[in-house]
Amino acid sequence: MAHVVVMYKTPKDPAAFDKHYLEVHVPLAKKLPGLRKFEISQGPVATPAGPSGFHLVATLYFDSLAAIKAGFGSAEGKAAAADVQKFATGGVDMILFDTHEV
Amino acid sequence: MAHVVVMYKTPKDPAAFDKHYLEVHVPLAKKLPGLRKFEISQGPVATPAGPSGFHLVATLYFDSLAAIKAGFGSAEGKAAAADVQKFATGGVDMILFDTHEV
Repeated sequence: MAHVVVMYKTPKDPAAFDKHYLEVHVPLAKKLPGLRKFEISQGPVATPAGPSGFHLVATLYFDSLAAIKAGFGSAEGKAAAADVQKFATGGVDMILFDTHEV
Repeated sequence: MAHVVVMYKTPKDPAAFDKHYLEVHVPLAKKLPGLRKFEISQGPVATPAGPSGFHLVATLYFDSLAAIKAGFGSAEGKAAAADVQKFATGGVDMILFDTHEV
C-alpha cells in the first residue's frame, strides 16, 4: 500500500474552504485512477503540544508509489491539482510514500 | 478511526536511526494501548516536487482521538515518547486527528 498525505494549512476562510472541498474537490479527487480509499480528518488536527496549524488532512491510499504517480499524472490528477489552487488559500503540504504494516 | 502521523526528519545517521527504530522503537510503540494498526513508510518519502526532507513516516491507527490521547498518556506511551529523544536526531513532526472515509 502507499499513502498520499495532504495537509492543508488553515485557510483564509475556513467555511468557504470546507464548502469547496466537500462539494467540488472530493468528487474530483475520487476520480483519480488507482485510488483505493480516501479519508479526511474530522474536527481539529492536533499535535501533542496543541493546535497544528492544519485545517484538514486527507489520506489517499493507492497500491504503490508508482500507482500514485500514474494517478496524479492522469487528466483526472491534473484537474484535481488545478482545483487545489482555488481553495487552499493557506497553502498545502503533500507527502507520498510506500508503506508496510509492522 | 483516528490517525497519528509521525514524520521523522532526516536524522544525522540514517543507518543508526533505522536500526534503533526497528529494533527498539517499533516494539515499544506496538505496546501502546488502543493501537489498531501501525504502518511505516518504505523507501523514500517524496513530495510532488521532489524529496520531502522526511526520512520515515509512521501512521498509527486508533479508534478515536480520545483513544490516542489515552494511549499516549499511558505508561507505554510515555516510554515510547521518551525513546523518540534517543534516535530522532533530525526532529519529528506529529499530527493527530479523527478521520472518516469519503
